[in-house]
Amino acid sequence: MALIVHKYGGTSMGSTERIKNVAKRVAKWHDAGYQMVVVPSAMSGETNRLIALAREIMPQPDQRELDLIASTGEQVSIGLLSMALQALGKQAVAYAGWQVPIRTDSAFTKARIQSIDDAKIKADLAAGKIVIIAGFQGVDENNNITTLGRGGSDTSAVAVAAAVKADECLIYTDVDGVYTTDPRVVSEARRLKKITFEEMLEMASLGSKVLQIRSVEFAGNYKVPTRVLSSLTDPMMSLEEETKSGTLISFEEDNHMEQAVISGIAFSRDEAKITVLGVPDRPGIAFQILGAIAEANIEVDMIIQNQSVDGKTDFTFTVPRGDYARSMDILNNTVKQQIGATSIVGDTQVSKVSVVGVGMRSHVGIAAKMFKTLFDEGINIQMISTSEIKISVLINEKYMELAVRALHKAFGLENV
Amino acid sequence: MALIVHKYGGTSMGSTERIKNVAKRVAKWHDAGYQMVVVPSAMSGETNRLIALAREIMPQPDQRELDLIASTGEQVSIGLLSMALQALGKQAVAYAGWQVPIRTDSAFTKARIQSIDDAKIKADLAAGKIVIIAGFQGVDENNNITTLGRGGSDTSAVAVAAAVKADECLIYTDVDGVYTTDPRVVSEARRLKKITFEEMLEMASLGSKVLQIRSVEFAGNYKVPTRVLSSLTDPMMSLEEETKSGTLISFEEDNHMEQAVISGIAFSRDEAKITVLGVPDRPGIAFQILGAIAEANIEVDMIIQNQSVDGKTDFTFTVPRGDYARSMDILNNTVKQQIGATSIVGDTQVSKVSVVGVGMRSHVGIAAKMFKTLFDEGINIQMISTSEIKISVLINEKYMELAVRALHKAFGLENV
Repeated sequence: MALIVHKYGGTSMGSTERIKNVAKRVAKWHDAGYQMVVVPSAMSGETNRLIALAREIMPQPDQRELDLIASTGEQVSIGLLSMALQALGKQAVAYAGWQVPIRTDSAFTKARIQSIDDAKIKADLAAGKIVIIAGFQGVDENNNITTLGRGGSDTSAVAVAAAVKADECLIYTDVDGVYTTDPRVVSEARRLKKITFEEMLEMASLGSKVLQIRSVEFAGNYKVPTRVLSSLTDPMMSLEEETKSGTLISFEEDNHMEQAVISGIAFSRDEAKITVLGVPDRPGIAFQILGAIAEANIEVDMIIQNQSVDGKTDFTFTVPRGDYARSMDILNNTVKQQIGATSIVGDTQVSKVSVVGVGMRSHVGIAAKMFKTLFDEGINIQMISTSEIKISVLINEKYMELAVRALHKAFGLENV
Repeated sequence: MALIVHKYGGTSMGSTERIKNVAKRVAKWHDAGYQMVVVPSAMSGETNRLIALAREIMPQPDQRELDLIASTGEQVSIGLLSMALQALGKQAVAYAGWQVPIRTDSAFTKARIQSIDDAKIKADLAAGKIVIIAGFQGVDENNNITTLGRGGSDTSAVAVAAAVKADECLIYTDVDGVYTTDPRVVSEARRLKKITFEEMLEMASLGSKVLQIRSVEFAGNYKVPTRVLSSLTDPMMSLEEETKSGTLISFEEDNHMEQAVISGIAFSRDEAKITVLGVPDRPGIAFQILGAIAEANIEVDMIIQNQSVDGKTDFTFTVPRGDYARSMDILNNTVKQQIGATSIVGDTQVSKVSVVGVGMRSHVGIAAKMFKTLFDEGINIQMISTSEIKISVLINEKYMELAVRALHKAFGLENV
């Protein structure tokens, strides 16, 4: 009998009426003969309410106690969903993370899953029960409750699917799948029926908010077939129709040649660029600059070091725009003197646009086509970075939408 | 070093501001050199909110899942209180019931505590930490979360105090102690500085709502010195003053002779009386009548069976007024025919008034004084029941306040 894991986000669980709809959908799958495990998020707004309460007590609350509090949101929603399934005549049982247990490390508010005991889940499934497991949470070796960080329920669902060797993990969300690019920017954007795990990973890391990146890593590591689909459809829609909806994250590379060269255009508007000018070109300079930034927990993305002239070079990198001011402070207050740089300049009016696709591996000329397209639109490229299946460019923010539309058209994505 | 357990009710924990006040009070005790364990309730209104959510899903929710949900109220409040103590510079750690663990049976929504592991608590106290433990909840042998029923946090606190062998358990509530009777009925009512465990047990079972009766049983069984006092006082009041406030439930009977004969007048307004007339006087009749009532989970209080005349007798008992209609239905629909009773009559305009005091044991004439006092006021006694330290009478509801005032005066309670 096939085993399916469903994950429902906070919006889908947002009221008792919506929870009843989730129950109808899950019961429909169970009626069709599937063994069902369900991983819900907290009701929308609940986690924020709990964290706000904690901040009223203390602006920087203790992280262990914060997790103890924040984890209650899912503990309520699993109980309600279990009841809603029972109201439909199903046998259902709800487990908090520690009851499974879902073991994590002790990094409160951003814990990582280490293992999931499948014994209870398997026994309940064998007894015909639907099993509801709290997303976003786990328990460390000292029986402290931990949470996985924002969006952690996606990771919980994929990890549970891996642990129970589910045939598929269905992530129900408020969008109906992964698109070639954001439909709000390009009206011709199309939903992808399939995307490879690696492409999904690039899309997630490039700012597409459909799935939490750690859940994609989990899906990749454990080869969990994962589908992103809408929870806003009629819960009683036919199962045949439902299993064809959304976007499947796949691990099959056999039909590689049939795939489009490029799967999507990702973008990230809120970038900032910082250049350290007149840096002595000697070993250790990159570390001295970026080490100070990393220590402040600021994520550096693109990095360029220019060819040295007269023993001096320029060093440029990007950070999220929200971290720009803090980064400049760190560089001006300490790093500049330490390394003897001439000056530090920055630009907060920059955005990143990326083309992503596994087809890139076997096709030459993608980069050339990308650069020509931008040139034809008169868009200057400020920085470039590449991976095996992705090319990103940094451009002036005001051209971002234009660049996305032009690239979407140039790579024929409206016909995917 | 003396070890003290504090318990705070939902009103005391009702907002983040109030939680900060609780923290100040606890920190004051810790500063004075006491080892501190704190057992808070959920923020007021929270448990009701959670149960209402569950009832939106299902009018009669599954009790295991209901406990999973209802227990989150305390999980939030312990986290917030721990943070509030940390904000004051204290080391504090919060534990849900299962983390201690507080082991209970599996009677969901009304579980009974079986054991409490004191290892973690003792280790944390030894390390100078203030330990916060969720009231109202525990965990059964299969790691299901259980709750102890309404008011269960009192029982949690006393049980924890017994487990850690606390020197005293302080129950902070919205009244400042136990009174000779309800001050709303008798303005001369006085706060008792001391009450014996047995008197407190009678007062609790007779309708005085100050403490949950199970917590009093626990205090009695484990001889936990327990004090009921107000959380509405200035949290920074002197410790000397605070330790003299409220009412101490004591276990010392040595200074027995000095105690007042009667400690208090309890009453319960909402009683109903039912009489089954013309019952054949044969063995098993009482069981046939009351068995059917007990099966419907209705609590029977006073019971009288009259002297039989011509092989027929009358059987009278009282039930809470809210259960009157249901009781009459059960008797009329099934029991009446089974036992061949003539008819069933009832009265919902009755109330119970009781005098309570361990001094009764060594003083004769208490009953006579009580009956004379009521006679002098022209109040007819409908039923009488007695225990070693209590005499209760059932009277017409309209005379209840008059009876309480007259008895309070007759036994000199305004001078206690």
